[in-house]
Order: sequence, then C-alpha cells, then structure tokens
Amino acid sequence: MEIQKPYLLFLGDAPDALAAKVAQGIKQWHPEYCVGQYRMQGCNADCGLEDIDIPTAHAKGAKTMVIGVANRGGFISNAWIKVLQEALEVGMDLAAGLHVRLNDIPELAQTAHKFGRTMFDVRFPTQDFPVAAGTKRPGKRLLPVGTDCSVGKMYTALAITDELAKRNEKVTFRATGQTGILVSGAGVCVDSVISDFISGAVEVLAPANDPDHWDVIEGQGSLFHPSFAGVTTGLIHGAQADALVLCHEPTREHMRGTPDFALPEIDQCMQLNLAMAKLTNPAVKFVGISVNTAKLDEAKAYEYMTQLEKEVGLPVVDPFRQGVSRIVDNLLA
Amino acid sequence: MEIQKPYLLFLGDAPDALAAKVAQGIKQWHPEYCVGQYRMQGCNADCGLEDIDIPTAHAKGAKTMVIGVANRGGFISNAWIKVLQEALEVGMDLAAGLHVRLNDIPELAQTAHKFGRTMFDVRFPTQDFPVAAGTKRPGKRLLPVGTDCSVGKMYTALAITDELAKRNEKVTFRATGQTGILVSGAGVCVDSVISDFISGAVEVLAPANDPDHWDVIEGQGSLFHPSFAGVTTGLIHGAQADALVLCHEPTREHMRGTPDFALPEIDQCMQLNLAMAKLTNPAVKFVGISVNTAKLDEAKAYEYMTQLEKEVGLPVVDPFRQGVSRIVDNLLA
Repeated sequence: MEIQKPYLLFLGDAPDALAAKVAQGIKQWHPEYCVGQYRMQGCNADCGLEDIDIPTAHAKGAKTMVIGVANRGGFISNAWIKVLQEALEVGMDLAAGLHVRLNDIPELAQTAHKFGRTMFDVRFPTQDFPVAAGTKRPGKRLLPVGTDCSVGKMYTALAITDELAKRNEKVTFRATGQTGILVSGAGVCVDSVISDFISGAVEVLAPANDPDHWDVIEGQGSLFHPSFAGVTTGLIHGAQADALVLCHEPTREHMRGTPDFALPEIDQCMQLNLAMAKLTNPAVKFVGISVNTAKLDEAKAYEYMTQLEKEVGLPVVDPFRQGVSRIVDNLLA
Repeated sequence: MEIQKPYLLFLGDAPDALAAKVAQGIKQWHPEYCVGQYRMQGCNADCGLEDIDIPTAHAKGAKTMVIGVANRGGFISNAWIKVLQEALEVGMDLAAGLHVRLNDIPELAQTAHKFGRTMFDVRFPTQDFPVAAGTKRPGKRLLPVGTDCSVGKMYTALAITDELAKRNEKVTFRATGQTGILVSGAGVCVDSVISDFISGAVEVLAPANDPDHWDVIEGQGSLFHPSFAGVTTGLIHGAQADALVLCHEPTREHMRGTPDFALPEIDQCMQLNLAMAKLTNPAVKFVGISVNTAKLDEAKAYEYMTQLEKEVGLPVVDPFRQGVSRIVDNLLA
C-alpha cells in the first residue's frame, strides 16, 4: 500500500478540532507532505495550512486527497461525496481511514474507475491474522495507554520513536490506527480487526525482534471507555509491553462521546492498566506520563505537571511543550 | 435466519471432547433436534448419539447437518469438505459457526448451488452495529464470566434461563456465540464483530426491556485469556450486567490453548471482573459460582464446592449435577 505524496488534507465539515485529528497528525509529523487543507462550510477545525480549492491543490502537485476528518462510527456524509468526486476528477487519489470504505460507495467507485484513480481504505487490514499465542517474544515494546480516547497516545508514540532514533537506538513506530498508518505508511488498524484476532494482529504487527530493538506501538482507546475498552484490552495483551506511558488530558470533563462517564483517577487508571498488561508481561512498568496540556496556559500546565510528578514519582511531560526526552531517559535508565 | 430441524451433528475429526462443544451443547439442550452424529476417523469426541451415515440421517428426516466441531481459529479442513458435499448432495442444508464461511469455499458453494441447498454461517453477523453508547438502559441483565474459556458459561446461562422461566420470570437467553445461536436460533457472535463495535453489538443484542425482565447473556472468553480478553471486556461493558456468575473448571492446569498461562485465583478473577463491569453498572455484583466438576468424582466435587462456598460466601453449584436453583434463589432474593 503506497500512498502517493504530497497530500491535500480534507477537513470536511469537522465539528471540532478533535474530529480532524487525522489531518492534524499528518501535518504535525510530516508538514512537508501537505500542500494545503480543504474545508467545507461549517468546518470548525484548522490545521494551520493554506485553505485551497481542489484545482489549486492539483496545480501545486497534490497526488492524494487524504480524508483527515472522522465522524463517530466513521461514516461518510453525503455532503462530502461531491468534493471527493471532484478530487478524483482532477486526477488525485483518495486515502481514508474510516469504517465505511470509499470503495463501497458506488458514486465514488464509479468516478475512481472512470478516471483511473486509486482509493486507499487504510483502516481495512489486507491480511488475515491468527489467534494470539501469548508466547513471550524477544525485542522490547513500549505502549502508550490513556485515561480516555484522543488524549495524545499517537503523538506520544511518535515523539518517543523520534527521540529513540535521535539517540541511535533501534526503534520502529507501529501504527494501530488510521492516522498512524497515514503518517508512517504502514500498520494495522486494530479496531477494524475481527474481535477474536485483536491480540493476534498486534503480535503480527510488532513481532519478535532484536533484544535491544524497541517497537513503539500506537495506543488505542482506554480501559475506562465504555465503547472501546475491548480494543484496548486486546492491544495491551498482544503488545506484551515492557514499558507503558500513561497519556492524559487534564481538562476533559467526561469520557469522550459519553457524558455519563467520568474520567478515571490517575492511580486507578495506572493500576488497572498494569493489572491487564501483567498478564502477558509480568515485568511491565510505567516509565512516564504524557500530559496534553493544550487547554492550559503555560503556568497552569507546569504547575499541574509538577504536582502530578510529585504524586506518582515518574517523569511527567507534555510532549508538545517539552518533548519526551525525560521519559526516554527513564526508559533507557 | 431459520435453520431447518432436525439436525445431523457433524463431529468431524475432533481431537477432544472440548473441540466438539458445539455439538454437545445442541444435544444437551435440545436432544429432540438431533437424529444422530457423524464422526470421521480419528474423532475423539462423542455426544452419545447414534453414529449414522449421511444417507441414513437423511432417511431419518435430518434437514440440516450442523458442523458441531471447532478448530482453533475456526478453519475448515480439507478432510471435511467431501463429507459436507455428500450432505448437500443427499438434500441437507449445512449450518456452521466457524470463522471461515462455508459460503466462501468454492467446492461447497458450487455443490450447494447445484443442489439448491442453503449454508448458514451463523458466526457472521447479518447487520451493522453502532459504537456503544454506554447509556444505562432499563431491564435486568445477567452475565456469566469465566476463569478461562470453555468452562461452562453457555451451559450456565442456558440453565439459569430455564430456571427463571420455570419460575415464571420474564427471561430471554441472548446468544453471543455459535453454539448459543444454533441452540436458541438467534443471537450475535460477538467475537466475529469488528472490534470497535463489540460493546455496541451487545447493547443491540440485549436492548432496553421491562424493568423486571432478565436477559441472560452468554459469556465469552475470560479477562485472563491472552488471546480473547478483548472480546470479554467489550462484552462485559456492553452487557451492563446487574449480576455476574463466575464459571470455573477446577482441574484445568493452564489457560486453554496457552500452556504458558496459569489460571487466575478465584478472588483475583472476581475482583478484576467486578472492576471492569462496574464501569457500565456500578451496582453489579456476583450472585453465584458455577463449577464444571465433570472431571472430579462426586465426593471430590462436593468437597471442592463446599470449601469454595465457605470462602466466597456465595452459592456454589455444578449446574450439571445440581441445577442452578440456588444461584437463582440468590439472584431473586
């Protein structure tokens, strides 16, 4: 699966910035892939790229329009289809990580066929996976886990990957979601794997490796999210993680999308994640906490992190403000 | 999906009795559906039905040959295909709950088409499911959970369903696996649902109901099984169970299929299941323990259960030896 670059990022009618986290992730990690963003009426997200129309993007060399926005449940609205057809018609491919396949939408399939374009549905695994064996495998693995969804697990994993690479450690980022795959060019969307094979898919994605090689596996969901904890559990068991990093967004008032559910306490969340992770790696431990403090001012952010670090006795960082070097120091210590 | 009865149960070359638990379940709960069993060379399972060949089964009125044996991962061996074709040729339908679809095997699809027969792949959901909402819904729900796979969760659920019905309580059995579906005629194989929708599928399967109605939901896997705990987690969260029943097989030396993994302690298992179940129903509690003592003699079985009951302070029964009336007494108390 080789997606042609550069990209035009399609933000659609994203109701908020979180809904466009796919586009945001691509822009943050590879701004050089992006010629601009395309926003429809009512879009409340902004990647900070130039707003351009489809002919302009094509003229600037864009080879693929990437759907950088996700609805709850991952469907494609009718309002998008005309825009996607226009991109195909001017000569761009499409790439998306939604639950619905671009290739299953007759209008798009017809247009893509007519203009000889390719549509990449990166969420859909292109291989079968075995039932997990659970057998301990060589190589080291790090997994970010979250108090909630959308708290910075992928960002943290990518930052740790970059930091380990900078220190000349053997390291591979293993994408488990659509954004990670679009950013890194490979991976498995574990939440689209048949339930029976979640852990098995992760065993395949992050296989046996050199004893001093780190797989940094993108985390998914949260053990405390009533919609997605099954995915998280399977991912934790398949990862056989040596190291966990807790990811947290301190201003979240309830679990994302489910107003009836409060966020867990930090220590409660760490305890349950350790209990689950110990099943397949009894030596697992937390090596740090990654806090998304985007909604706090700098003083509040550092105050929060200093206090939390005192309570848990682990490096607490905001990877966006500070990088993850202190977590990686602890990981390698 | 209306599977024609009566059945011929196909046990294939099942390596042990557990591998034929599908057939065993159908025979135990509805012996009147079964005209006999068909076993191949090397079969080590026995449902205690008459061994008959396919023409004899057809002559006795069998309408469907049910694949009552499951391999790890759920594939269909080449050795089976000739037998399945023979059943189609004499005029029987096929029904199976394997990961591989009968309908995806060209030889079978061609034969079924040629002879006008239907092949039911009950493992594959015929509808799409939403992401779980997590919102508390009316009606009461009971869920068996296990120290391991294949310890009697379905049996326990069916026994509790029958006992509640006998007492004129409003009750529905909700099948979550292939055997349950073949026994009850409806349900969703939750382990074949896309991971993102496990909990959502359970919310659909066991929806809002009368406040005094019990859904008895078939359990799956175990939180302590390194291959399947993701499914179990999603099922627990979607069930929003009011009552849990712990199911246990006391002679199991390791988790089924994974020799590196010991069974959890009873109290450890209850604690983790409660911790997970409380997320979507803080009032959840255990109402009893169901022990599969098939491998113990009667004296040992009762000694074990008496001791365990003293330790946990809940009714401990073997539903096969004693029925589940003491658990249901406690449930309704």
